[in-house]
Amino acid sequence: MLEEIAQQPAALERTINEERGKVARLGEHIKARNIDLIVLVARGSSDNAALFGRYLLEIVTGIPVALAAPSVHTLYGARLRLERALVVGVSQSGEGEDINRVLEDARASGACTIGITNEPASTMTGIVDETLLMHGGRERSVAATKTFTGQLLHFYMLAEALKADGAASLNYEAIPEYAARAMELRPLIEGLVERYVFMENCVVVGRGLVYANAFEMALKLMETCYVVAERFSSADFMHGPLAIVERHFPIFIFAPPGVTLGGVRELLARLKELRADTLTFTADAEAARLSTRAVMMPGEIGETLSVIPYIIPAQLFAALLADAKGLDPDAPRSLAKVTRTL
Amino acid sequence: MLEEIAQQPAALERTINEERGKVARLGEHIKARNIDLIVLVARGSSDNAALFGRYLLEIVTGIPVALAAPSVHTLYGARLRLERALVVGVSQSGEGEDINRVLEDARASGACTIGITNEPASTMTGIVDETLLMHGGRERSVAATKTFTGQLLHFYMLAEALKADGAASLNYEAIPEYAARAMELRPLIEGLVERYVFMENCVVVGRGLVYANAFEMALKLMETCYVVAERFSSADFMHGPLAIVERHFPIFIFAPPGVTLGGVRELLARLKELRADTLTFTADAEAARLSTRAVMMPGEIGETLSVIPYIIPAQLFAALLADAKGLDPDAPRSLAKVTRTL
Repeated sequence: MLEEIAQQPAALERTINEERGKVARLGEHIKARNIDLIVLVARGSSDNAALFGRYLLEIVTGIPVALAAPSVHTLYGARLRLERALVVGVSQSGEGEDINRVLEDARASGACTIGITNEPASTMTGIVDETLLMHGGRERSVAATKTFTGQLLHFYMLAEALKADGAASLNYEAIPEYAARAMELRPLIEGLVERYVFMENCVVVGRGLVYANAFEMALKLMETCYVVAERFSSADFMHGPLAIVERHFPIFIFAPPGVTLGGVRELLARLKELRADTLTFTADAEAARLSTRAVMMPGEIGETLSVIPYIIPAQLFAALLADAKGLDPDAPRSLAKVTRTL
Repeated sequence: MLEEIAQQPAALERTINEERGKVARLGEHIKARNIDLIVLVARGSSDNAALFGRYLLEIVTGIPVALAAPSVHTLYGARLRLERALVVGVSQSGEGEDINRVLEDARASGACTIGITNEPASTMTGIVDETLLMHGGRERSVAATKTFTGQLLHFYMLAEALKADGAASLNYEAIPEYAARAMELRPLIEGLVERYVFMENCVVVGRGLVYANAFEMALKLMETCYVVAERFSSADFMHGPLAIVERHFPIFIFAPPGVTLGGVRELLARLKELRADTLTFTADAEAARLSTRAVMMPGEIGETLSVIPYIIPAQLFAALLADAKGLDPDAPRSLAKVTRTL
């Protein structure tokens, strides 16, 4: 897992170089089709990537985005009206049976279909109209890291390709360098995890574009460290779940710059009153001041491109905490790399 | 909270009687508008009701449904293309500022808008094209119960009104009687909660139509009992989070009859191997046999109408567990009835 985390800057660079031309051409093709809905279909870490894709694509393209509920198709046999939809399946292995069933149904109903996967010869690539590949090599750890950021990157490239003519570029080419900068945090994280070795449960919070990071960090903590990790947006967290917070309760918070920072600062101030124990990933001095601990991120990373560099210290945190607990993050108990569900 | 739980059968009956004519007329109006997307906007318990609405509406109408991310509108200022959409806001108080902002934006962009609320004179009712009201009276407990099931009921009525001509009726008129039957479980639940007084964290599982019940039971446990309660579909649970399960780990499972029961039985068998501690709400003898404890539901309740009667023992469980722990479920620490977020 640590090896694959470290491979991410190079893997992202390679994926940009290999795929950017194809994604741009695909964008022209999709724009010509008068799409008025995008549906994303995924499970597990890939579903967390899709959660990011949902925010980015709505914000950048103005097209409404829905995250599919696979059982509606696979168990309830519903036939959705998707003639004017773009349906994007996301699966590391390309072998998620339920995801593939939804893609087949969508294609049969006239939708334009795309698969984002790591496996060029998978079942998924045989179903979809177009495949977007990650070029980071086979992922061996059960805990997805480089395929997760590879999927995030593809959503940046897809959003860039679908944005309105004349809209500002996302400049996603800066991401591999930002990811490399984030990797430099490893020694800091190594020292930090000792504090959390006996943590039994926690909450992870993010909002907007980094909401997906809260889901992904929580999933890594569950998979590799066996910590009961809840995930909320800072807005939903105030609707009820805040009641679980007592003195010393551990909360991890993504606080990049931008439109969500004000609300996150308010949440941090409230959590400080409640004497929660907060660890914040941020470049903001005020957010850091309000936190029990902070991981200071490079200041030049703006909100839109924060998602990949901000998940890297969280991936390192999970892998290094597992190690500090004497667990093997590459072989979590009870899990296999490919999960079969219908 | 216990009082309001007990009011539900009568409240549901009243809402059916008062609203069914209006919802049916509204359905004709919406069908005439050639809607090809439904967007649901909510937070907290109302968002859990919307999660149910999403499954039911897709299954019954074939129209794709998206759960809105309010921050896309309120913080990122995106203008989504919603001319052919039906946008449904769900809010007990009708005063959720972010929900109302999304409804305003949607209406401005040409969408047809509906509000489901308990407050006829709220801000929301002034924004939307049509209001669907719950008729169970003012809800005083911070933990929503009768407004949650009232919202679920409105989704049944809306799905019935939007279903294809000639499709089978949902027969939702049976729900108040089923809810009354579920209330008879109170003495059983009173005995059961003693076992869970020192539970610190747990997982709640449901899939398909009762997926929303997993979210709602988890939220009630967090709000009123301060238990760290995760919520998953049985499919997602196998993708990673299963690793947190160790011997004696408490898991609550909704297992109504129908298409999801097979998968839930498989999960129960796996959890039995892992020696987890399971409590299952079910009418199925095999699911009960695989569980550590079971709450046996009336056998005549089919899958489609299971959602409301199956949440009632879970509501009772949360309220009675709070009581057994010496907590006041009507006044959870750190919370207010109306939460303001943008």
